[in-house]
Amino acid sequence: MKQKTAILLIHCPDQEGIVFSVTDFVSKNNGNILMLEQHVEEFEKHFFMRIEWELENFSIPREKISEFFGTLVGDRFGMKFSLKFNDFVPKIALFVSKYSHCFFDILSRYESGEWNIEIPIIISNHEKFNYVADRYKIPYHHIPITKQNKAEAEAKEIKLLKENNIDLVVLARYMQILTGNFINEYPNKIINIHHSSLPAFAGAKPYESAYKRGVKLIGATAHYVTEDLDAGPIISQEVRSVSHREGLADLKRKGKNTEKIVLAQAIWLHLNHKILSYKNRTVIFS
Amino acid sequence: MKQKTAILLIHCPDQEGIVFSVTDFVSKNNGNILMLEQHVEEFEKHFFMRIEWELENFSIPREKISEFFGTLVGDRFGMKFSLKFNDFVPKIALFVSKYSHCFFDILSRYESGEWNIEIPIIISNHEKFNYVADRYKIPYHHIPITKQNKAEAEAKEIKLLKENNIDLVVLARYMQILTGNFINEYPNKIINIHHSSLPAFAGAKPYESAYKRGVKLIGATAHYVTEDLDAGPIISQEVRSVSHREGLADLKRKGKNTEKIVLAQAIWLHLNHKILSYKNRTVIFS
Amino acid sequence: MKQKTAILLIHCPDQEGIVFSVTDFVSKNNGNILMLEQHVEEFEKHFFMRIEWELENFSIPREKISEFFGTLVGDRFGMKFSLKFNDFVPKIALFVSKYSHCFFDILSRYESGEWNIEIPIIISNHEKFNYVADRYKIPYHHIPITKQNKAEAEAKEIKLLKENNIDLVVLARYMQILTGNFINEYPNKIINIHHSSLPAFAGAKPYESAYKRGVKLIGATAHYVTEDLDAGPIISQEVRSVSHREGLADLKRKGKNTEKIVLAQAIWLHLNHKILSYKNRTVIFS
Amino acid sequence: MKQKTAILLIHCPDQEGIVFSVTDFVSKNNGNILMLEQHVEEFEKHFFMRIEWELENFSIPREKISEFFGTLVGDRFGMKFSLKFNDFVPKIALFVSKYSHCFFDILSRYESGEWNIEIPIIISNHEKFNYVADRYKIPYHHIPITKQNKAEAEAKEIKLLKENNIDLVVLARYMQILTGNFINEYPNKIINIHHSSLPAFAGAKPYESAYKRGVKLIGATAHYVTEDLDAGPIISQEVRSVSHREGLADLKRKGKNTEKIVLAQAIWLHLNHKILSYKNRTVIFS
Repeated sequence: MKQKTAILLIHCPDQEGIVFSVTDFVSKNNGNILMLEQHVEEFEKHFFMRIEWELENFSIPREKISEFFGTLVGDRFGMKFSLKFNDFVPKIALFVSKYSHCFFDILSRYESGEWNIEIPIIISNHEKFNYVADRYKIPYHHIPITKQNKAEAEAKEIKLLKENNIDLVVLARYMQILTGNFINEYPNKIINIHHSSLPAFAGAKPYESAYKRGVKLIGATAHYVTEDLDAGPIISQEVRSVSHREGLADLKRKGKNTEKIVLAQAIWLHLNHKILSYKNRTVIFS
Repeated sequence: MKQKTAILLIHCPDQEGIVFSVTDFVSKNNGNILMLEQHVEEFEKHFFMRIEWELENFSIPREKISEFFGTLVGDRFGMKFSLKFNDFVPKIALFVSKYSHCFFDILSRYESGEWNIEIPIIISNHEKFNYVADRYKIPYHHIPITKQNKAEAEAKEIKLLKENNIDLVVLARYMQILTGNFINEYPNKIINIHHSSLPAFAGAKPYESAYKRGVKLIGATAHYVTEDLDAGPIISQEVRSVSHREGLADLKRKGKNTEKIVLAQAIWLHLNHKILSYKNRTVIFS
Repeated sequence: MKQKTAILLIHCPDQEGIVFSVTDFVSKNNGNILMLEQHVEEFEKHFFMRIEWELENFSIPREKISEFFGTLVGDRFGMKFSLKFNDFVPKIALFVSKYSHCFFDILSRYESGEWNIEIPIIISNHEKFNYVADRYKIPYHHIPITKQNKAEAEAKEIKLLKENNIDLVVLARYMQILTGNFINEYPNKIINIHHSSLPAFAGAKPYESAYKRGVKLIGATAHYVTEDLDAGPIISQEVRSVSHREGLADLKRKGKNTEKIVLAQAIWLHLNHKILSYKNRTVIFS
Repeated sequence: MKQKTAILLIHCPDQEGIVFSVTDFVSKNNGNILMLEQHVEEFEKHFFMRIEWELENFSIPREKISEFFGTLVGDRFGMKFSLKFNDFVPKIALFVSKYSHCFFDILSRYESGEWNIEIPIIISNHEKFNYVADRYKIPYHHIPITKQNKAEAEAKEIKLLKENNIDLVVLARYMQILTGNFINEYPNKIINIHHSSLPAFAGAKPYESAYKRGVKLIGATAHYVTEDLDAGPIISQEVRSVSHREGLADLKRKGKNTEKIVLAQAIWLHLNHKILSYKNRTVIFS
């Protein structure tokens, strides 16, 4: 059985003694450190850290760690920190429209137990994949979106997310733009896959634009959703080369492969508490 | 010794019988075809072809091939075509400013005989690399550029290119924008290296912008220069992944490696007559 | 609707006039050539070609093309050729053991209509995925393999393949070694995915070996199965970089992503008649 | 001006309190930690760490740090550790035979000041590049190697390395196998570039073997030299895809590009004290 661990993600302005104070806190309380990564950003002199330690024998009870750490260490350095546990099973809401490749890929990983997650709801603006949700016995909510009903539809969605205690929203090629109202309910908790290597070809029809521009690389980008369209913190990116012999259909076919791998990689990083967002960028402790 | 070959690069609206007519022309005149690649672009139904055959035993003399092909085949299909010979030794003018990595890399390939080229002149807006040109006994023309003297300086450069019968201009991180006047003298004969994966981060300071945006891939793009800045036909592109631990200096260091490889690859493709430009895109017969 | 096309894959010792004769055959009979690729291997002077043309207006009926081509062109040059049609719907037999990632990925592509195929049977040495086959209403044959029953089990499998007119066998991480007897029934018609960048780490436990050797790249290879274990003609390969921070479980997780993409790519190439096998190597007309 | 830093590379069996003790040592003595990376290998439970801190204000003088750290921390945990300083300028001996691409690339980086190094000697078994060494005013030692004189020749080489206080030996496509006698003088201080993606195609003529095997990826590997040919700890690897249209000359041309980048990357990692070797593997703190 896998050992239980606690993870702290920390950032603050750089000051002397931070690493020492954090490791002192863990060690003094009998926590065995398994992994520590830390660095200082060069321009802003901002400090970033991820530390993971074994909970067995740790003398502070789980539910008190955050309070103790804040009082004894965090407040002193003006830290923003979040505490995670590796045995936490997050609840994911899956949003999908009409493309199946990312959707099927995520469900396959879920089914095979590759990720330790729950998927309490699937939400779609189309009926199309209701039968797929049935296979997995996951409630499927068909919420059509029109210009007129958008506010109302999103309110319905948010209500569902709240009722199901959703921790992470995954947009698996969900072809609707979320409003700021929705996004602000889940900061750094909505992952989208965009089918280009951002910032190139943001917005609609990136494959068509890439084909027209004659690029030699086709990419995909997973990012946290912010109010600026396709401009949120980038989590993962990959590209594949394309040749002149490859038509638009080939670009889309190859792109789909990249999309599903990149999205899955981003979800994995999020689930394993490897991402720290700061000022529209991410630090990835991979 | 390498066999001598002729290469035809052809494009025209698709019609029946083109491939047959071209291969008929070559075969009837005793040319042994070594390589043929052909395809039709899906949206415009435009036909592209590259064919290479042995000159030994070919019954039409070199200097007459273009005329004969035009009359017997090209005109009939409304083709744009260009005829090349694999034993042609092109004359390259090297433009450089203050960065050495692409400049040194090209000179190293030249010195080792990797490319069958001549470099009759090096042009720079700085004195810096005069001593390097001396090593290779290549005339080094220091032509400073200011807002005021730009037209005059370019006139001087064009005169030098003409006098030296230059076939290809390579901008090895030459940090000046050429005017339309200059560019129009050498259509599809000026190759530039831009230090980003275009169309992302066109213009100045791409590494700084990439760092700020937090991308996970750093790239370089070699392209033919057109009047639209960094928007000409793309020849080759590559990217490398970067992590949060890597600062701006690391991005630049990694990027330089990518730049020199991508630029060399583009030059190689041009030298080997593998590139066909059409409507701001390239067909690469690699 | 997509136009119907015929595809010829050809190889033979290089001789003068081959390209001309083939295009003459197609053009004289009113076939519009859509794509042609041809080259000559440098050491053996062996000729390889793929040509695709529209069937509409082609004056030779489908079922006669092969005979006519053989008589009029093929025999003269001593060609080995195979004729394919782009509207052919191949029948695939899927073999699987206990790993789901490639298996689910293929079924997802099948379900979404990404590939124009039929999957008449799934064969496994385990019961595990019977319920998955049920979803797709594909007969699932559980054929356990032991040292003792191998010959008998394979005979049963071959009988099933024959009865179902199987065109292609896909080993989706099927953890059994096929005997020569089986393989010889389906030359260049069995695709396997091996979880390393062959020829490195052939045989069992490649991830364990890669971890132990400390390689910085983890790959996967799809190949046609021959009697030499993991030594058949390579169709496609990809790698991903791994770091020291990544344990064996990470290698396997990343590797699975690579495996499913590489296997799918190989199947796509096979389905689109882009592969020509010659002397344990493949020519990929991609 | 760049701040001066000290770097500790540490490994030992995992025990409680290591990170705390190390950071305590640094912090108590007024060292500001800039970067810390640490992890525990999963199978052997072996602990690895790299820590870098500012020397300004550090209360222990440079020349005493190693002694103090050993006594106060290292000995207690049975650590193997090495202390480095970022302002150290290492002396590199360059070995070359007849291929110029890596050799020219390294000299270009040296000339441009990309690396903060000295190159006191170049050693070659051929006269060929004497004139290049002259350019850089680096003594060039032509030491021919035959079966008969190998021991004697190596003795001469080792003497030269010692006299010049060489810190790192770089084999820039040096086509001679070093004996154990030589290698043992410079453990983890000899970097070789092998022109394949090891462990595939170790030994002679890897491009020929790769071509014959029909692989779709061509790679290069930089590694520390050990007595087992091409089997030392791998530092960096990259691959490039190749197609059927590419002959042996293309593989070599593409491969050379990969070789020089991979070798340069390995040298950079070594120069920046980012490599820790353990049991024939490397930990790369990149």
